[in-house]
Amino acid sequence: MTDFKAVDAAIAKRMDQNLEELSRLCAQPSISAQGLGMQECAELVMEILRQRGFKTELMPTKGFPVVYAELPGRSDRTLLLYNHYDVQPPEPLELWDSPPFEPTIRDGKMYARGVSDDKGHIICRLAAIDALLEVDGELPCNIKFVIEGEEETSSPNLHAFVAENVELLKADGCLWEFGGVNHEGVPVLYAGLRGICYLQLSVETASRDAHSGLAGSIFPNAAWRLVWALRSIKGSDEYIRVSGFYDGVRPPTERDLEYLAKLPESSHDLKKTYGVRRFIKGLEDGIELRKEAIFSPTCTICGLTAGYQGPGSKTVLPAKASAKVDFRLIPDQDPEEVAELVRAHLDDEGFDDVQIEYLGGERPARTDPDDPFLQMVASSAEEIYGTPMLVTPMSGGSGPNDPFVRLLKVPVATAGIGYPDSRAHAPNENIIIDLLEKGIRHTARIMSLMEAS
Amino acid sequence: MTDFKAVDAAIAKRMDQNLEELSRLCAQPSISAQGLGMQECAELVMEILRQRGFKTELMPTKGFPVVYAELPGRSDRTLLLYNHYDVQPPEPLELWDSPPFEPTIRDGKMYARGVSDDKGHIICRLAAIDALLEVDGELPCNIKFVIEGEEETSSPNLHAFVAENVELLKADGCLWEFGGVNHEGVPVLYAGLRGICYLQLSVETASRDAHSGLAGSIFPNAAWRLVWALRSIKGSDEYIRVSGFYDGVRPPTERDLEYLAKLPESSHDLKKTYGVRRFIKGLEDGIELRKEAIFSPTCTICGLTAGYQGPGSKTVLPAKASAKVDFRLIPDQDPEEVAELVRAHLDDEGFDDVQIEYLGGERPARTDPDDPFLQMVASSAEEIYGTPMLVTPMSGGSGPNDPFVRLLKVPVATAGIGYPDSRAHAPNENIIIDLLEKGIRHTARIMSLMEAS
Repeated sequence: MTDFKAVDAAIAKRMDQNLEELSRLCAQPSISAQGLGMQECAELVMEILRQRGFKTELMPTKGFPVVYAELPGRSDRTLLLYNHYDVQPPEPLELWDSPPFEPTIRDGKMYARGVSDDKGHIICRLAAIDALLEVDGELPCNIKFVIEGEEETSSPNLHAFVAENVELLKADGCLWEFGGVNHEGVPVLYAGLRGICYLQLSVETASRDAHSGLAGSIFPNAAWRLVWALRSIKGSDEYIRVSGFYDGVRPPTERDLEYLAKLPESSHDLKKTYGVRRFIKGLEDGIELRKEAIFSPTCTICGLTAGYQGPGSKTVLPAKASAKVDFRLIPDQDPEEVAELVRAHLDDEGFDDVQIEYLGGERPARTDPDDPFLQMVASSAEEIYGTPMLVTPMSGGSGPNDPFVRLLKVPVATAGIGYPDSRAHAPNENIIIDLLEKGIRHTARIMSLMEAS
Repeated sequence: MTDFKAVDAAIAKRMDQNLEELSRLCAQPSISAQGLGMQECAELVMEILRQRGFKTELMPTKGFPVVYAELPGRSDRTLLLYNHYDVQPPEPLELWDSPPFEPTIRDGKMYARGVSDDKGHIICRLAAIDALLEVDGELPCNIKFVIEGEEETSSPNLHAFVAENVELLKADGCLWEFGGVNHEGVPVLYAGLRGICYLQLSVETASRDAHSGLAGSIFPNAAWRLVWALRSIKGSDEYIRVSGFYDGVRPPTERDLEYLAKLPESSHDLKKTYGVRRFIKGLEDGIELRKEAIFSPTCTICGLTAGYQGPGSKTVLPAKASAKVDFRLIPDQDPEEVAELVRAHLDDEGFDDVQIEYLGGERPARTDPDDPFLQMVASSAEEIYGTPMLVTPMSGGSGPNDPFVRLLKVPVATAGIGYPDSRAHAPNENIIIDLLEKGIRHTARIMSLMEAS
């Protein structure tokens, strides 16, 4: 059995190196939505994997390639690590206190786009491996890495990749790309992920913008068409009016509700962190809020654009307007089916002039929260955080866990270095360096306990 | 009486000079909405006025200053010329075939931001004066110029300027800053302008953007709030749902309808020019379309902005969203009153989280289409265009004619160099050089006929 004291000491000794490597990784932009720096980042990831002795392969997909890597261990048990090397776009740039691709350490935190989501997690896994190799000279289990480049654009090609490599990716447990502590510093394990259907709705009513004085009384206005079409999809009661949308939604089980009941109140901290005055649907604290946050599907406008958006006024009637909209899905909703329902809804409501572009989708998927692998991941946290992980039946977020769960039939657990103020997908994304170290220590234990599991 | 043959010859001879001067004026950006190049442009305008012997004065307002200029003529009659030296923002830049501030001549047209609206009209008036001075050695009437710098931002300070200078601005007729020919090449005179109320609606639901997975089920979304608030203002039936909004609207008189009946069909050309497939409210050709285009007030979304607007997808729940909205007003609607009605409406509908910023307003105002000055302007066009001007009771567009009509009690006529494809406020704004020359010839006749009127 691994000497965890020695492993923890090895981790502590290497923290400067770990931060340096993380900084190098974050300095390399890799914005999949904009196709920026993707090849360079994949190569950098391969390089740092090879430095540990990993056998690496850049495996092509129809989009950005997957970095696959493996390193054998002393047991026949295999831990699969899913991560991604792409990041969200850094905009709006003016809200960053330091440039997004110039990693900066302030007050025990490192700031950069991708420092938490997901480059910090790549380094977390590697630093655990470094420490285990230093102390034991070998790994307790086989490690397989799948590091994709399209997570931030809904992983359009990962399902096919997994389907084509079921044998290669075979494993006994899968550690997911994210995770972290809640507002009380308690680490949280998510036993599933909601699905997502990401659509762009576009309207074009004319071949060019017109003067609003000339045309305001008689021309169709793309921005108005878009507003009315959106309002037809969801009203201010937050009810999604797309016929059939809720049909696939499975309600939480009794066991789910038991897990939810054990979770702490987080509403006060959420409100404080995000400067939110009230929740929607009149929700307050309690299990109802938690149930809603996880088990209700959503329709979120992620972006709106039309006409003149500069300072002051411009009297223009826009010919084009578009919205980015994501739907978070609950088992057994299906993203492609949702896209079809939205199309049918818009046609029914007289909005056949609204075009839909399917920007990506992921099916929702869950692992049984009582699965032994998940229970091992949860309980092994206690030594580091002073408490086992809180098992949550599903995350509000999404990810491509469906092919892992359904095709590889591997239990998927989350454990990571995030915290409520990590600002993933937002300006000033950051990690707490102390939590990175804790995450490395926890990861080393998970790898070690795989041997005995 | 002026020898118009000689005047026309003088105009023809000077066209190259006129275009050169227009080009120089357009090369100087003067974007009032963004505060770009305003002082430089005002000084350039003063310089070219002084070259003609005008006494000029840069008169301060609370915003950008007014260029005032006067030149006496041989009669005691006075023609007031209202123009503006500011232009609309040039965005979207990528849709211009040549840079907006690098005036370019192609196929008998000059392209530049402001070449029609309104720098071409300034040059039109000056070129007429040049020709009259060359032929007669003096002007037939006194000329007063009011050239403001805030027309494109709803002239917030012009009303006060006129009110403070009623004696200075006294005149017998006022020639407005725009005008031109319709789809059939027939010049059109507008005997009034609709008013405008320009509002920015903004919502802020949180202090920062959130991850749509974390927050989609429970946080308010600024973009959704905006969409619902907008939909509450106008539904897809195009009816404006703000209580009291239509109260001030005076229907057209019998005489207005007579004038409307004389106007030609323009629906086919409008559709073709703007690539519009259908009009709103099921309108087709005919007097109903013309009546609607002019005598119905509007609510136009000029711009929408929220969240992520770049390529691909970003799963963000926006904390802020805003819309630019203009209302075109009919006598006797009042822009400030409309802003108050919208505020009350949003409060009533539960949208007190939607902030309103009043970006500018102008009252609607009309001159009697049978006024002798207007009839002179209309009939004097015949020699140049082969037809008198078509008198239209009101323009769909807006402008600050209210203080001229109400405070100066001067009849206001439009006559200009525009045409249906001038693309004012849009990319590739342009004039037809031949129409500029015609406009100069017409302006010279109007000035000359002022003497006898």
